[in-house]
Amino acid sequence: MHDFEVTILGCGSATPSLLRNPSAQLLNVAGHSFLIDCGEGTQIQLRKNAAKIQRISHVFISHLHGDHYLGLLGLLQTMHLLGRKTKLTLVCPPELKEIIDLQNKHSQTTIVYEIEYIFTNPKQAELVWEDDKIEVKSFPLRHRINCTGFLFKEKPHLKNIIKEKLDEFNVPTSQVNKLRLGFDAINEKGKTIANDKLTVSAPVQRSYAYCSDTNYYEEIIEHIKGTDLVYHEATFLEAEIERAKKTFHSTAKQAATIASKAEIKQLLLGHFSARYGNTDGFIIEAKPIFENTLVAQEGQTYKIN
Amino acid sequence: MHDFEVTILGCGSATPSLLRNPSAQLLNVAGHSFLIDCGEGTQIQLRKNAAKIQRISHVFISHLHGDHYLGLLGLLQTMHLLGRKTKLTLVCPPELKEIIDLQNKHSQTTIVYEIEYIFTNPKQAELVWEDDKIEVKSFPLRHRINCTGFLFKEKPHLKNIIKEKLDEFNVPTSQVNKLRLGFDAINEKGKTIANDKLTVSAPVQRSYAYCSDTNYYEEIIEHIKGTDLVYHEATFLEAEIERAKKTFHSTAKQAATIASKAEIKQLLLGHFSARYGNTDGFIIEAKPIFENTLVAQEGQTYKIN
Repeated sequence: MHDFEVTILGCGSATPSLLRNPSAQLLNVAGHSFLIDCGEGTQIQLRKNAAKIQRISHVFISHLHGDHYLGLLGLLQTMHLLGRKTKLTLVCPPELKEIIDLQNKHSQTTIVYEIEYIFTNPKQAELVWEDDKIEVKSFPLRHRINCTGFLFKEKPHLKNIIKEKLDEFNVPTSQVNKLRLGFDAINEKGKTIANDKLTVSAPVQRSYAYCSDTNYYEEIIEHIKGTDLVYHEATFLEAEIERAKKTFHSTAKQAATIASKAEIKQLLLGHFSARYGNTDGFIIEAKPIFENTLVAQEGQTYKIN
Repeated sequence: MHDFEVTILGCGSATPSLLRNPSAQLLNVAGHSFLIDCGEGTQIQLRKNAAKIQRISHVFISHLHGDHYLGLLGLLQTMHLLGRKTKLTLVCPPELKEIIDLQNKHSQTTIVYEIEYIFTNPKQAELVWEDDKIEVKSFPLRHRINCTGFLFKEKPHLKNIIKEKLDEFNVPTSQVNKLRLGFDAINEKGKTIANDKLTVSAPVQRSYAYCSDTNYYEEIIEHIKGTDLVYHEATFLEAEIERAKKTFHSTAKQAATIASKAEIKQLLLGHFSARYGNTDGFIIEAKPIFENTLVAQEGQTYKIN
């Protein structure tokens, strides 16, 4: 089974602090290295976490508030200076291309590698990327400006064959592909052998969702239903509920409510306002509503199992 | 005498490293707080150095390579989020306004304070700002794209009156302004009293120049002649002279040669390539040509005396 894990590079919000960096995380899934959001200083966070920046194949940007993308311009520049050869795919709001193009124009930079753009749709959920092992969907969040969440999900695995059983039931190898897809087999005597006698189930399809920034938005629930790990923003505690509404952010309690209603496996809270030095309050507020809650810590890697 | 000092926030070059930050420095002069260049992460460097960001009145941007300005967008945003009320003056290439406007448009941000732009001229030296105590000139450097250096210089100080001497020579207080400007006085008996009997000289006009990025460019000399402290880029050592030429940067030896020819008082080297962990080589190379050379260190404050 491939690694499927996310490393938090930044879990602070817009006002910078010495405690936390702006939003960024590195997702390692099915052999891919995906960057999700890229606030100012992300390149340094990548270095501090010994990440290989040229291995990043895709960058997913949720929205165009500075704390979610201002580190991207420098990162693109560094990949250029270090002579990157492979394509980089940016999954982002269309306006980001305009910003990148203008900056490259004024710095007279012709990026030496290819940048492929895949634009997110702020109005409805869409499949933005897939390969044979994984699919990525974007879905609308509700924030002050257009903003999308992302769901990273493994594709259905093929079933595993029990070799000895093939011999035992005289099933020819020509039946293997069928069996792996879940169908019954016909053996050498023309008899049907039930699939579950010859195979073991594949591991479940693991999934990870990123929901930042958003206020309390129940439309999210259908998109993240049953997800293994969900990072949901919790900029504030419930005492600041009015500020949360006004700024289109969520409280810890609201994030936990979404997690509970969506019946996810585990909740990871982040995007904390700089006013909170200590994050105990987030756990205290979320756990009574959704027990399996964690508070994001920069430099920590969370496995999706 | 007012403080006149510069704090180095970043003295690395374009490729990021864990050793150094990209270009930024904070100049404290005649009661003003000026930021010179603003690479990615400058806001955090300001916080680490306990600088008051809302006290910064002017930002001077040399050119539009990312390592000299990508931190500005986040800084403007933070000043906005913290409710800045006072005007901020940006002295910069005109294209920077386009970039800032586009980013504010796409983040749907209307900055709550006034930004005044003063555009630098890449073709010739110009007075870009002055008040009664200080003047700032920009002057062309020679880099891959338009780039200017900046000279910060105190205006001539008024002379200081020796009060006891006014009584001794029967000089009325109506003569004080004349005396401070350097003229002789007429006493109560109509007799001329020489200025130097009644006053002491003002402190000399102190000056600081910022020259980054540039290759070896003798045109700089006339602009920084006799300056007290000059920060001159030294991206490379002489062993990389070809690379320096190609990338329009300087070596330590070249910076020292400019310092020597311009007869400045003290040279501060910076903008070091990430390839140099240790900076001893810069001192070894520069000192035989210009003895009073220092290597910039982040977090250090250099006084201009």
